[in-house]
Amino acid sequence: MNSEAKSQKLQAISIIKIGGNIIDNPAELKQFLSDFSQIEGHKILVHGGGKSATKMAQSIGLTPQMIDGRRITDAAMLDVAVMIYAGQINKNIVAQLQAQDTNAMGFSGADGNLIQSVKRNHPSIDYGFVGDVKKINTSLLKTLVSNGIVPVFCAITHDKQGQLLNTNADTIASELAIALSTVFEVTLNYCFEKPGVLFDSEDDSSVIATIDTVLYSKLKAEKAIHSGMIPKLDNCFNSLSQGVQKIRIGHHRMLENPNSVCTTIQL
Amino acid sequence: MNSEAKSQKLQAISIIKIGGNIIDNPAELKQFLSDFSQIEGHKILVHGGGKSATKMAQSIGLTPQMIDGRRITDAAMLDVAVMIYAGQINKNIVAQLQAQDTNAMGFSGADGNLIQSVKRNHPSIDYGFVGDVKKINTSLLKTLVSNGIVPVFCAITHDKQGQLLNTNADTIASELAIALSTVFEVTLNYCFEKPGVLFDSEDDSSVIATIDTVLYSKLKAEKAIHSGMIPKLDNCFNSLSQGVQKIRIGHHRMLENPNSVCTTIQL
Repeated sequence: MNSEAKSQKLQAISIIKIGGNIIDNPAELKQFLSDFSQIEGHKILVHGGGKSATKMAQSIGLTPQMIDGRRITDAAMLDVAVMIYAGQINKNIVAQLQAQDTNAMGFSGADGNLIQSVKRNHPSIDYGFVGDVKKINTSLLKTLVSNGIVPVFCAITHDKQGQLLNTNADTIASELAIALSTVFEVTLNYCFEKPGVLFDSEDDSSVIATIDTVLYSKLKAEKAIHSGMIPKLDNCFNSLSQGVQKIRIGHHRMLENPNSVCTTIQL
Repeated sequence: MNSEAKSQKLQAISIIKIGGNIIDNPAELKQFLSDFSQIEGHKILVHGGGKSATKMAQSIGLTPQMIDGRRITDAAMLDVAVMIYAGQINKNIVAQLQAQDTNAMGFSGADGNLIQSVKRNHPSIDYGFVGDVKKINTSLLKTLVSNGIVPVFCAITHDKQGQLLNTNADTIASELAIALSTVFEVTLNYCFEKPGVLFDSEDDSSVIATIDTVLYSKLKAEKAIHSGMIPKLDNCFNSLSQGVQKIRIGHHRMLENPNSVCTTIQL
């Protein structure tokens, strides 16, 4: 089936990922959740952690565990992540969305076995309790969404053997998008502090409207795109090549105003 | 419709409430979750909090807020309850059930607006962020359960205006049972440290097999039943009078062995 025929057949769903810059700012979060509530049709929210887990870890006297200079998620730190991400942040977001008549339901990957992961097993680096996504329960997610539920995912998954695991929120968003692209027309939106991918990282007005693999290679070679943006964009191109219909990166204002500036990623 | 016709028509569901004595003991919890997984048919788990919330409150330096000698749930204590009940305890239970192929999904009352409550407004006592159950989303719960989901509720609800609230777990179990008794044949099971309601609270072998309102009044007058058992039983008789089909009180072993000793409450 060609992609046009597919897009005519499938219902649309928006997946929106937000990070610490929104989570850590109550006024910003409130504005975002209000905009999110206004999005029509099926939608899913994926949220990162922000600074509260680190603050909580400090206040109960945990010291970050380092191996070979790398911070690892040990059992105590995982416990804090579960409390803060799946408890405090997730439930407060759900309650705020419910106040806006959005029928949100908060999930970790363990709930309904929605996101099963596998503990990262690296030959030389111990990442601790970190999970790489293995399987999405697409049919249950579709059932939930079709019943008017708005899933709200935190960045905690499980291994189906009783172990919760910490998983990168960007990855959760892209894996959900890939899985759901078989049953929905997916738009994946990454919201962050900038208005989009920039030609000049120092100039917020230099947003790239559309970036494809050719432009990406060119800008990488010129070092105009560098550091944290590289894994983000690699992730996006990978998602598109696996069937995700549309990906946008920008400030969360792009949700409120469809004509707002942002970057669209395309193959 | 008489109750016999009703019982022939409705599918059965078991609601099981567990408290701190199981939550605080990892070996006991593991055994319980294994037994719970074996229960056939539709089921719901409701769990209390145990001691971790108090421990966490102490370790971050919170002092219990007292007004007129009564401990109140202030904002900081509610935050801890949300983290521990909806985060740590709930997600670990869900992950353990998933490991046993039970398709558990963990909920606060905010999720899917499943349990809406109202902040307790007492003319003379300030309870803080405590909610009394107002409305159960019976149709969504029925949809979830009919899709093979096993809901796992913590004792956190919300007011549908963005505020999470602390709610008694026994009450959540009975309110769920009352609401679901219109669409299922409900058996409500309260698991606690004793094998049942006792004629003599010092003698664990003195379990009352069946207690009705007549026997209850008699034993209350004789002070054989006293203190914490009185609100528990009042709650049970209220649930039965509002349509719950069957209520049992006992040790969680009663789930494993249907012939195990326990107390059945009847009108």
